[in-house]
Amino acid sequence: MKELQERIRAEGQNLGDGILKIDSLLNHQVDTRLIMRCGEEIARRFRDENVTRILTAEVSGIAPAFATAYALGVPLVYARKVKPVTMYGPVYLETAPSHTKGMEVNLLVSAEFLPANERILIIDDFLASGRTLKGLIRIVRSARSTVVGVACIVEKTFENGRQVLEPFGVRIESLVVITNMEDGRIVFADE
Amino acid sequence: MKELQERIRAEGQNLGDGILKIDSLLNHQVDTRLIMRCGEEIARRFRDENVTRILTAEVSGIAPAFATAYALGVPLVYARKVKPVTMYGPVYLETAPSHTKGMEVNLLVSAEFLPANERILIIDDFLASGRTLKGLIRIVRSARSTVVGVACIVEKTFENGRQVLEPFGVRIESLVVITNMEDGRIVFADE
Repeated sequence: MKELQERIRAEGQNLGDGILKIDSLLNHQVDTRLIMRCGEEIARRFRDENVTRILTAEVSGIAPAFATAYALGVPLVYARKVKPVTMYGPVYLETAPSHTKGMEVNLLVSAEFLPANERILIIDDFLASGRTLKGLIRIVRSARSTVVGVACIVEKTFENGRQVLEPFGVRIESLVVITNMEDGRIVFADE
Repeated sequence: MKELQERIRAEGQNLGDGILKIDSLLNHQVDTRLIMRCGEEIARRFRDENVTRILTAEVSGIAPAFATAYALGVPLVYARKVKPVTMYGPVYLETAPSHTKGMEVNLLVSAEFLPANERILIIDDFLASGRTLKGLIRIVRSARSTVVGVACIVEKTFENGRQVLEPFGVRIESLVVITNMEDGRIVFADE
C-alpha cells in the first residue's frame, strides 16, 4: 500500500533491534483516516472470504481491526491481556511474548464472543516474530472456527513470522513489507 | 442516544458494585457500526468547538475515540498504561485507579504527540469515578493545551464522576446516562 509506505518512510524511526517506531501513525497517535483506508484495503483483499468476525489483540491491533471490521460490517473481538472483572465464564487463553514490552503476555478471549463455525480474519499491527498471531490462530482453532487469514499493517520479514505461521497453512496479507532494518535503514520489499 | 440505550437495555449486565458489563458492544466485542454512530454523535455535539485532537486512554477508550476522531478528521492520541520501548523523550504522567482491574494504573502520553495550544476533546467509554478523565485533563493542561470537553459513552451518575470533574470547569457530554444500578437494576436517566 503505497500511501502507507510513504508515510512510514517519512515518519517511521528505526530504533535498533528491529524495532520500528510508527507512533505518529498507529501506535500512540493514530491517523484515523489513513488507518481506515488500511482497513478498507484489507477488507478488499478478503472480500470473497465470507468473513464473519475479526479477531485482534489489544492494544495496537484495535485501530486497524476496528477499521477492517467496519469496512466488512462484521463484529470485532479483541483479546484482553489482563482479565477485567467483567470477564467471567470460560475463556480461551494463550500466551505470547511482547516484542515492545519485553515480557510474556496473556491473550484472553471469552468463549461467549468466539462461537464455533465462524470465519475469522485475524488482524494485528505488526507481523514480526509471529507469536501473537500464532496465539490468536490457536485460540480460533480451539473454538472450532476457521481462520480465513491473517492481515497486518507492517511485516518485518527478517523476524521470520511468516515461517512461524507456515505450519498453520493460513493466508497472510501485509500492507507494507520491510526486509531489512540493519545499520539504521528501513528497506522496503519493493526496493 | 436512543439506539445505544436500547442496546444496553438488551445486552448490558449489572454485575453488582456498580459494574456494567457491555462486553458485547464495546469492551471486548465491538459493534463497530454502532460505535461509529456514537463517534458521529459526539462529533456533532462538539462540531463548533474547533477540536484539533482527541485524547483517550487505552484500552476501552480507543474504539469510541477512533470513531470520533474519524468523524472530526483530527488525530487521535491514546494514553499508554505501560511504557513501550518505542516511547522515549519527555512524557506526561498521571496515575488513576482502574475500576475494573482493581489497581492503580499509569497514564502516559509522549510530549511529542501533545503540543501546546491545541483544542482537545477527551473521550472515554465510561464516566464513573471520573479519575481517569481527571488524569487526562491534568495531562492536557500540563501540556498547555485547552480541554474543550469530555465525552463518554456511558455515565453512571451514582459514582459522582461529574462532581469530581466540576472543579475543572469543562463541558461534559454523555451519550447514555445511568442513575441507579441497585438491586440488579439498570435505571436510565430518562426513566
